[in-house]
Amino acid sequence: MLEALQGLIGERERVIPASRIEPNYLSDTLGRLKGEAEALVFVKSTEEVSRVLRYAYEHQIPVTPRGAGTNLVGSTVPHGGIIIDVSQMNRVLEIDPDTMTATVEPGVILQDFQALVESQGLFYPPDPGEKTASIGGNIATNAGGMRAVKYGVTRDYVRGLEVVLADGTVLTAGSKNVKDASGLSLRHLFIGSEGTLCIFTKCILRLVPKPETSLSVLVPYADLKTGVRSVLKIIQANANPTAIEFIERSVVDLGERFTGITFPFPEAKAYILLTFDGKDEVVRLGAETVKETVLKNGALDFLALTDPGVAADIWKVRGCLVKAVEATSEQEPVDLVVPIDKTADFIEYVHEAEAHHGMQMVSFGHAGDGNVHLCIVRGDRSDEAWEKELRTVMTDVYGKAYDLGGLTSGEHGIGIAKRPFFLSNTAPENLTAMRAIKSSLDPKHILNDHISYLE
Amino acid sequence: MLEALQGLIGERERVIPASRIEPNYLSDTLGRLKGEAEALVFVKSTEEVSRVLRYAYEHQIPVTPRGAGTNLVGSTVPHGGIIIDVSQMNRVLEIDPDTMTATVEPGVILQDFQALVESQGLFYPPDPGEKTASIGGNIATNAGGMRAVKYGVTRDYVRGLEVVLADGTVLTAGSKNVKDASGLSLRHLFIGSEGTLCIFTKCILRLVPKPETSLSVLVPYADLKTGVRSVLKIIQANANPTAIEFIERSVVDLGERFTGITFPFPEAKAYILLTFDGKDEVVRLGAETVKETVLKNGALDFLALTDPGVAADIWKVRGCLVKAVEATSEQEPVDLVVPIDKTADFIEYVHEAEAHHGMQMVSFGHAGDGNVHLCIVRGDRSDEAWEKELRTVMTDVYGKAYDLGGLTSGEHGIGIAKRPFFLSNTAPENLTAMRAIKSSLDPKHILNDHISYLE
Repeated sequence: MLEALQGLIGERERVIPASRIEPNYLSDTLGRLKGEAEALVFVKSTEEVSRVLRYAYEHQIPVTPRGAGTNLVGSTVPHGGIIIDVSQMNRVLEIDPDTMTATVEPGVILQDFQALVESQGLFYPPDPGEKTASIGGNIATNAGGMRAVKYGVTRDYVRGLEVVLADGTVLTAGSKNVKDASGLSLRHLFIGSEGTLCIFTKCILRLVPKPETSLSVLVPYADLKTGVRSVLKIIQANANPTAIEFIERSVVDLGERFTGITFPFPEAKAYILLTFDGKDEVVRLGAETVKETVLKNGALDFLALTDPGVAADIWKVRGCLVKAVEATSEQEPVDLVVPIDKTADFIEYVHEAEAHHGMQMVSFGHAGDGNVHLCIVRGDRSDEAWEKELRTVMTDVYGKAYDLGGLTSGEHGIGIAKRPFFLSNTAPENLTAMRAIKSSLDPKHILNDHISYLE
Repeated sequence: MLEALQGLIGERERVIPASRIEPNYLSDTLGRLKGEAEALVFVKSTEEVSRVLRYAYEHQIPVTPRGAGTNLVGSTVPHGGIIIDVSQMNRVLEIDPDTMTATVEPGVILQDFQALVESQGLFYPPDPGEKTASIGGNIATNAGGMRAVKYGVTRDYVRGLEVVLADGTVLTAGSKNVKDASGLSLRHLFIGSEGTLCIFTKCILRLVPKPETSLSVLVPYADLKTGVRSVLKIIQANANPTAIEFIERSVVDLGERFTGITFPFPEAKAYILLTFDGKDEVVRLGAETVKETVLKNGALDFLALTDPGVAADIWKVRGCLVKAVEATSEQEPVDLVVPIDKTADFIEYVHEAEAHHGMQMVSFGHAGDGNVHLCIVRGDRSDEAWEKELRTVMTDVYGKAYDLGGLTSGEHGIGIAKRPFFLSNTAPENLTAMRAIKSSLDPKHILNDHISYLE
């Protein structure tokens, strides 16, 4: 196989044999799940992706697509076969202010892309927590992030995709057009497909004008429930915040210890953290509307973070939480989603489950869209105890989320790690339909089949 | 077949035999294309849809789904078999302010639904021109409309769909959750599928807070090109208008004659018509930003339509254009889309094509998203001449749109009427992929197969 691949690629040094594949290429960013592969290929063009896929398809060799490898659910853990790594396909091909679009290769890194478009007065709103993820990976998981309250998720910013199907066929789904009622939406089917239907080779992204200014606001509460409930009032008040996050005081403590930063209003039990962006007057008006709304709905105070240093500190605490947890223990990241009116109920349940199972669960996240991040903390458990207890806790937690009308994942995807919970909570009719579609586009099931729920 | 259907439905009067099917059920709203059917069934529940589809699937009988029948492309023209009419499934099942969603049956009429949610302080932004369309039909074509500039299209407001697949399987794709990275998006595949993959039986729709106020603005120009070019500047200026329409003076003349209303600034050759909505200050700010922008970019004036009577008159002229054309002649409606920076080039081409072919084409539409409506005017042509010349003109017009990076349809869908132009301008790889998906979910090709490009 190696010789064949080297023939297809031309440059021998971009085809890595099993014996020389570095361990991080056999895992995701957490590094717990480890796979194996016969070859790792660094592709540089659509044509190379097509040639390698055609070869793999002919010989029925499993293929694992890989971008920056920052996923948290094992999506890039190979199961034999070939890893196609697109990280060297990382050119920004065009920034087109006349159609407010950019065309990029899938390996472009999110934070580099954001900085580039902002330097030209434009803005790419999707802003998932992991800034070193690739754009292709963001699209493959329909990544969300904090700004989704105002701007929507990655799906809303993908105008078009050049992709290679399992058999090597190249096609473009979508275009620079804003509206499209012209045929089945292959584009929307491919977004969020986690490498199971195709490999992206070009991404046409929608841009918006860069907001003139932004403002963060911290709202302390005597209890989380009151805080989370006021989120609904904020949304209904048409204040148009960019982000609405919640953090409990106990979680802030963790962040304070990790960063050395002191959060204001320490007597609060929970906080809502908001941002606004846009023209000065629009931002001011949004913040005023929120002030009025939250003070009428049980907030202890309303702190406009007009000092950029203070705002940066607050966001540093919010931003460090996963790392703060990981500094104390291994953790299992959960990013489930519930309908926004069920967020408070769900977090209450998490507290009960913590007590019931004797397992620490640190929760925070996107209150504006019911997307709750949980870090399930291992502590000093043995491998065996951790595996067993984690499974029990996760089964309960996902079960509760589904009882409340929720879903397995709001933004990370399913991968290997969430598959059992997704499978046991998804209707068989839906799985059958998804598998039929998978088989129609990848009849030999070579693309990420082992990680998927589609095999 | 009739007896079997009557057995499945229970109430005999809801199963109409071929001999008693009224002609409008055998066509679309234009009434030019006529089909035939063996039976018309008025279904009242998901269970009935499932039973009828299961029967049709077993016996390989073609099925044509039908809502309000307001489409313009022949999507509801049957080709034998059964028409499943969901217009009696027209209940609003829930309006849920806590998740900002509504759950409705597919036969609910758009304008009724808009009025209902607005009476409760909520807002359903999609606003296609045809207000008597059904919500199910809007989703089947991913309908757009004027407010798309600010709010997006129907796709952006569909949170979930209960559907019945060709074989009678019922499943729910999507949910009340805001974010979803949990498996292939069946929901997004079904949106815009024109009745070829499933029949919708419940629709979970996203609502937003009702805007506090709105304002329309008319901007006259000495020529259309300058007007359309300034649209890009408006978008780049972050003024956030709800709608940006363009109309040429010659088209306004038609509307004036039809309504008896006089448009201001008659010496202009073209107009841009905008709306803003939201909080008073936000609206005022948006309008001010646009004023500054357009006056710097060649506008003859900036007319804020603060008198509600004047604003209503202006919109009456814009709203009557199709009817104004139809009062003079039969017309072929075209709703193609081009990248926003190509709108001016495309309209210039239309003028050349008018002269070249000697065929009048009235153009107006959604300048904010490159969605151009053309009425190709028959005049006094014979049936034969009309058919032949129309085909030639349409081939040219669609060819030009695709040359400019455009698409067949921005919001009407493909149906029968646009199929030849869609087929000849779409890459074979895309058609193959769409057909594979169709076959995977409807292996016997019973659902709207005759009208589709998927057969």
